[in-house]
Parts: sequence; structure tokens; C-alpha cells
Amino acid sequence: MNAYQQLEQHFKKYYDFENLAAIVSWDEASMMPAGGGKARAEALATLSAVQHDWLTDKKVGELIKQAKDIDSLSLWQQKNLYWMEKEYLQATCIPVNLVEEFTNESLICGQAWRELRAKNDWKSFKPYLEKLFQKVKTMAEIKSQTFNKPTLDVLIDEYSPGLDCKTITPIFNSLKHELAKLIPSIIEKQKTRQIKTLTGNFPVEKQKQLGMEIMTRLGFDFNHGRLDVSHHPFCGGISSDVRITTRYNEHEFLSSLMAITHETGHALYEQGLSKEWSTQPVGHSLGMAVHESQSLFIEMQICRSLEYIRFLVPIAQNYFRDVANITAENIFYHYTKVQPGLIRVDADEVTYPLHVILRYEIEEKLFSSEITVADLPEVWDSLMQNYLGLSTKGDDKNGVMQDVHWPSGIFGYFPAYTFGALIAAQLFSAVKKSIPDLKEQLQQGNFKTLLSWLRANIHQKGRLLTYTELLRQATGETLNPDYYFAHIKERYL
Amino acid sequence: MNAYQQLEQHFKKYYDFENLAAIVSWDEASMMPAGGGKARAEALATLSAVQHDWLTDKKVGELIKQAKDIDSLSLWQQKNLYWMEKEYLQATCIPVNLVEEFTNESLICGQAWRELRAKNDWKSFKPYLEKLFQKVKTMAEIKSQTFNKPTLDVLIDEYSPGLDCKTITPIFNSLKHELAKLIPSIIEKQKTRQIKTLTGNFPVEKQKQLGMEIMTRLGFDFNHGRLDVSHHPFCGGISSDVRITTRYNEHEFLSSLMAITHETGHALYEQGLSKEWSTQPVGHSLGMAVHESQSLFIEMQICRSLEYIRFLVPIAQNYFRDVANITAENIFYHYTKVQPGLIRVDADEVTYPLHVILRYEIEEKLFSSEITVADLPEVWDSLMQNYLGLSTKGDDKNGVMQDVHWPSGIFGYFPAYTFGALIAAQLFSAVKKSIPDLKEQLQQGNFKTLLSWLRANIHQKGRLLTYTELLRQATGETLNPDYYFAHIKERYL
Repeated sequence: MNAYQQLEQHFKKYYDFENLAAIVSWDEASMMPAGGGKARAEALATLSAVQHDWLTDKKVGELIKQAKDIDSLSLWQQKNLYWMEKEYLQATCIPVNLVEEFTNESLICGQAWRELRAKNDWKSFKPYLEKLFQKVKTMAEIKSQTFNKPTLDVLIDEYSPGLDCKTITPIFNSLKHELAKLIPSIIEKQKTRQIKTLTGNFPVEKQKQLGMEIMTRLGFDFNHGRLDVSHHPFCGGISSDVRITTRYNEHEFLSSLMAITHETGHALYEQGLSKEWSTQPVGHSLGMAVHESQSLFIEMQICRSLEYIRFLVPIAQNYFRDVANITAENIFYHYTKVQPGLIRVDADEVTYPLHVILRYEIEEKLFSSEITVADLPEVWDSLMQNYLGLSTKGDDKNGVMQDVHWPSGIFGYFPAYTFGALIAAQLFSAVKKSIPDLKEQLQQGNFKTLLSWLRANIHQKGRLLTYTELLRQATGETLNPDYYFAHIKERYL
Repeated sequence: MNAYQQLEQHFKKYYDFENLAAIVSWDEASMMPAGGGKARAEALATLSAVQHDWLTDKKVGELIKQAKDIDSLSLWQQKNLYWMEKEYLQATCIPVNLVEEFTNESLICGQAWRELRAKNDWKSFKPYLEKLFQKVKTMAEIKSQTFNKPTLDVLIDEYSPGLDCKTITPIFNSLKHELAKLIPSIIEKQKTRQIKTLTGNFPVEKQKQLGMEIMTRLGFDFNHGRLDVSHHPFCGGISSDVRITTRYNEHEFLSSLMAITHETGHALYEQGLSKEWSTQPVGHSLGMAVHESQSLFIEMQICRSLEYIRFLVPIAQNYFRDVANITAENIFYHYTKVQPGLIRVDADEVTYPLHVILRYEIEEKLFSSEITVADLPEVWDSLMQNYLGLSTKGDDKNGVMQDVHWPSGIFGYFPAYTFGALIAAQLFSAVKKSIPDLKEQLQQGNFKTLLSWLRANIHQKGRLLTYTELLRQATGETLNPDYYFAHIKERYL
């Protein structure tokens, strides 16, 4: 066996550990009784240490060096080697004790956040976040040297490979500019809409059956996945066993159903990855911006469209026969209402980017030391007033303390959401050109051609291409936010 | 840290691996979509290899040697060291390649069994079982030298520590003798019973709610466990997160409910183990005979008693209001019907031991080379005719091919079932002496005093004592099958 083949074997077993971690983490969020939590945390920490040891095994570095000299590698193999080295460097460049300190601080800060957010107590929470941010910064500075990139870029790249501030800043500036003009007109236009409430009982079991029917129609393969319940919806598992979750409210069904379709977008990506490369780094999904593009493609481009809603309505009526106002127009109104609000996860697709831009700009200022953690509430409030005309003064619970990301040590993630939305809009525009009768197909609930297009152009590529090249091959050009603007104008104006 | 403390740390992490394996195996049986099977099998094999490497680490042997010289160990610590060494020796005495060959052969034989049992094709199945049995025998011979015990004893001891043929054979002989006399009289006596069928619809959700209500009453802690569905009922997970399963039939509820109470017996044992020692070998359950004694205590001694059934009936009536004949007498008749049959898992508590004795005697003959695998169908049929008056000639599907044990390489397990039943009867007799109004308590659905007794006398002891000493301390004497005979006579004659 040559060095490359040995690496494939080594990373195959690394995948086995990832598989175990994915299933056990899914179990923790969706199945585990609370009393199992302590033993579970310990078991996952032990598994994580085993994974780290496996990935940073000295022989990996040696084999990578040797494998680079092999001439006969295919394109997929070359790219696989690239990702192996990247994962190896990311894992080895940080001293083990720093990794442990970070893990520990992030657990402590996360726990403090859960408790103190409920109490709207920023003052008590601040020292935890300061301590954790220092660790994040120290790690980012080391990685910055290893990968020869600015500190914030190195973090963004970990979540969304290839994305950097040089790309993000101008696009976010044009988004801010355009949305500032669009939002008032949209709100003005929607004033004449009469949204009718959907009152009735929506039993969990029926909602679940409806969700599964829609998932099946969209192309989700239940032989390789499940739908369950968790506190926050997510997509977990592995590509041959994708576990998505939602949560139900017996008083309404629209939000749970939309969460299901969003997660189905993630799941279709995972289920569509190349079977041949599933156990290797190159066979994984390309990163969070592209992952989010797939969920937002299904959620925003497909499932909030009037055509899809026309397909959905008779099916939903069939599940909830006694509920009035399940009409295409009314559901469309519900699913496309634009309204500035304080909470990112509740935002509509038009105001959502402003929430992301706010966070991104704060991260920029933090990493350039223009501001410190202590300044966050004030900066947050000021940007919120600027972008959405709302204040969070004295309301940190719904301001800087609203997201789980920073208290978990996750910085550099947020741009993925909005780049996902931009990519989704660009892909949808390309699909429309490629499938002329797409809108009729959606209205008939026929998603097969659409899914085939996504499979061939996105899913099956795994990590073979950069996100820019992936987009160029799929749509004929690199990222262009005009498709997003066109989409917003077409749907909302 | 002294050598013993280092061992505790090492085995704490070994427990973390056991935890992961337990949860992922439960998931495989109860949650996993079929398409996840291939990746799952590979992930579990990798985990199993990591566990084996961890347990057989050279330093473990060294530390055990050093720890034996420490004078200050408590009784629990001494016993913990004993179990550490036993697990270490069991894992290290067999060459790794032989373990791998065995694992491989048992997977192949298990798959062949699933396919060929359905076809009643012993002839095609025989070579698989022969090959696997050779591996089992070779491994048992090595262990026989390591532990200085006869080959079959060494296998029995792995499942039920401390049990051996010298103990089993005379007890099984007296069981055969007594049951031969009892069974005809019981059947004769039951001829006058009029068992009324329970017809109606028994929706899964209602059966589950009833099951959970009964589990809660029996003392199952849902903060540390769950109830789900699998093809065969089992009890899995870990002591702080016990996962039991059952399967439902919408046409009747009695068998699923009884499976739930049986598994609840296993679960109460696990949930009652000492918290202080939960991550150490000495804190685990004592082995399969004692484990089975706990499930059979709940199933046979409690849940098939007329007193318990009187408590159950109004609750069950409340769930299935339209179903006639849910009366205490009728349910008792259903739950205590004695009838010789071909299938062990369907057998009643009176004929069940004969199924076990048959298998034990065949295992004895196999390991003493008195017979070979090729002789099994004939020997099986002949013993079946002797003990239960039924023939399996040409019906190997319901004869020698009925159990999953041998095709999985499991020999020496069966006596655990019947020793479990004998221990359960002896414990119940002791409990009755200790709690004079026990029968009234059962009838009122009050299981608290009973559970406290089991907790104090069995569960919390973990592996501190041998099963013989455990029984002696709990009941005042060592194993005595007379309690079982007395129980059978009291209930059935």
C-alpha cells in the first residue's frame, strides 16, 4: 500500500469515529433522558480525545509528505490529500492544553449563557465571554500563522472554506445599501395584505405525517434517514443515515413544517454526496455557506414560493380539514411577511441579512481590537438602530445575548447564513434557465428534475471544487448578489 | 496516583467506550434506518478494536501487578481489581487474529442462519455452524488453560460468573425429574379453565402509555431511561440511561405488556446499581443468571401473580374500555397457561426449563466430543420427544435452528435463564418473609418496599459478591431449587 492508500485507510477509521459522534450527539439532542447527560458528556469527551489522537498521529504528517510525491493521483485523490492535510494542520497547530482550555471555557460560558440570558444579565455574563474570547483569539492567531491568513479570515474559512473578509465586506456593504431601500417599500406594499389566522388543533402526529409526506415528495430517502423532535431543529447523522429534527406547536403548523423543509434541504445535500467518497474528507459537504445554500434553496426559493404553496395547500387541507383559511394566498402571506424584529432566528428572508451583517461587523471590530467584549451591548444597540430601527438598550437578552454562537466560542460563522442565501438565489436562477417549465413542476409537486440538477451540480461534487468554482460551473459565473436582489424584488415588490 | 488509582482512571475511559457502544447498538436495533447499516457495522467494528486495544494495553498488566501489592485497598477496590484482571486476562489470552476470525465467522454464520432458518435448510447451514463451533472450541480451550477450568465451564462463567457444570448438572437433573411429574398434573388441572379471548383494537400509542404507566409504578425512572420499539425486546444502554424496548401487536396487548415488565426487571437492576461505582467493573451487574433473576422476578414472581393482575386490571380496562373479558381471573388464565411447545421463547414458566436443559445437555455432549455438530438435529429431536413429547424431525427451523445463540457463537449462555428463574423464586420467598403484607401491597400496586429490598439486597451490590454469597446474604442460604418447585406448585396445582 502506498502512502496515499494508507492515508485513505486511516481517514476511513476517522470517519467511523465521526459517525459514532454524530449518532450519539443526535441521540443527546433528541432521545437522551436528562439523567444520562453527565455520563454522556464524559463519553463524548473521551471519544473526542480519541479522534484528536487519531487525526494528529505522527504518521499522518509523514504519510502526507510522502503522498505528495505520488504522480498518479486522480483529481479526487489530490483534493482528498489537500483536505487531509488541512484537517491535520488545523488539529496539530494548536497545543493540546490550549484545545482543552478552550473546550472547557466554552462549556462553562455556554452554561452561564443559558442561565444568564434568561435573567437578561449581561453584567454577570460579560467576564465569561471575555475569557472565552481571549482563548478564541489566541487560537486564531496561531492558526493565522499556520495558514498565513488574517485571524478572522482563518475562522471564517474553518466554517466556510474559501470565504474571507475581502469577499464579504463589499458584498455586505451593497446588501446594506440595497436592503435599506427595499425594506420600507416592501412594508408599505404589504400593508394592504389581510393575513388571516389559522386557528385549530394541529396534533403532533398529524404534523409529523404531513412533514414526512412533504419530505418524501422533496426527495428525502427514509431508507437513509429519520425525522425526530429536538429543542432546536437541526440536521445531523452521516450521509447514509441523515437525522433531521423539528419541534411542534399544537396551535399552528406552519413554522414546524418550514423548519422540516429547511432541514430537508440540508439532508438532501448529505444524502446526495458521492457514495464512492463518503468515508473520505473530500466526500464531505463543502462547508457551511454551501450547506446553508442548500437548506435555503429548499426553504426560501422553493417552499416559500407561490407555486410550491399551491401544491402544498390541498395536502395540508387534507390533514387539517376543520381549519379555515388554508388557502394558497393566505399561506403565501404568512410565509412572506416582512417585519423588522430583534431576533435573528425569527427574521424573514429580507431583513435576515441585516442581522448577519451586524454580527459580522462586530466580529471585525473585535478581532481588529477596535472594540472589546465590554463594548458589545452598546455597539449592538447602535447597529440595530441603524439597520433595523430597533433598540436593544437594556434588553441584552434579545440583543447581544440572543445567539448560542459566541457563548459556544463560535466566531466567523454568521456570514455563512447570508452567503447561503445569495448562493441559493443564484442557483435557483440557473435552475430556472435549465428547466424552462420549473414553475409548473413545482406547482405539481414534481421535484425530481430539480433534485437531479442539484445532485449533479452541487451534491455529488462534495469538496472537489472551491465554492467559487462550484458556483461557476453550476451557474456560469462566480458569486453575484444581483440574483438575490432580483429574487427579493420579484417576490416582494 | 498509585497503580490502583491509575487503573480506575483507565477503566473509567473504558466505560466511556462501553457507553458509546451501548447507545449506538440500541440505536441500531430501535432507530437506525436500514440504509445506515453498512456504515454502522464498520463504525462499531472500529470502536470494538479501540476498546480491545484500550483493555489490552501493556500498562494494564503492569499496573495490576503493582496494585496487588497495595495493602490499603477497600473491599470494593479489591473486588474491582479482581474484575479488572479477569477482563484483562479474557481479552489478552486469545491471539488477536483468532478474535478477528471468530468475529468474522460469527457474522457470516449469523447471516446464513437468518436466511437458511427461514428455508428450514439445516443441510446448507451445517457447515457454517461447524466452522464457527471449531473457533469457539479453540478459544474455549485457550481460556480453559488461562483460568484452569474445563472448556464448557469457562464459557458458562463468562456469562454467569461462578456458575459451572458441577453445580448445574444435579440441579437440572432434579428439575427434569420434578417437572416430568408436575406438567401432566398441571395440564390436567387447567383443562377445566375457560380462557376467554380478548378481542378488540389495541392502538400502539395506548399500549405504550399503559406500558409506561406500569413501568413508572414498578419504579422505572424515566429521567434515567426510555421505552422504545425493536424487533426483539431487550434492555440496553447504561445504568444512568437504560433503554428498554418491546414490540406491539394491535390485535392484543398482553404479550407486549409482559415483555415490557420483563425488561423493566432488567432495567430496575441497572438503575439500582451503585452510583459510586458505576464507571468501574465492580459496579456492573453480576452476570446473566443474576440479571435474568431480576427480570424473571418482576415477570414471573410479580406480574403473573393474581395479586398484581388484580392491580393491573382496572388500569388496563381504563385504556381499552370497549374490550370485554379484561377480568383478573381471565388475565391470570392467559398469563399462566401451561402447554408444551417447540419454541423456547414462547414457552411458559413451567416447561421453559426443559428447553434450557435440552440445550445445556447438547452443549455438554458437543464440548466432550460425544457428538458433533452434524448430530444436532437427531439429538435435538430425541431430547425434545423425551422431555416435551414433541418431535422436530424434518422441522429444524423450529428445532435446532430456532435460537440466535449458537449461530452467533454463544455457547454456555442458556443455563442463565433457568438459574435466573430459580434465584427469582428463592428471592421472592425471602421477600415474602421480610415483608409480611407483600401480597396486599402488590394488589394495591405499591412496589416501593419490594423495590427497596431488591435495591439493598441485590442491585446495590454490583459485583462485590459471588452470586452464591449474594444469594446467601439475601436469603440465608445458597441456591435451593425447592423454592422454584414450591412456587410452581402453589401457582399451578
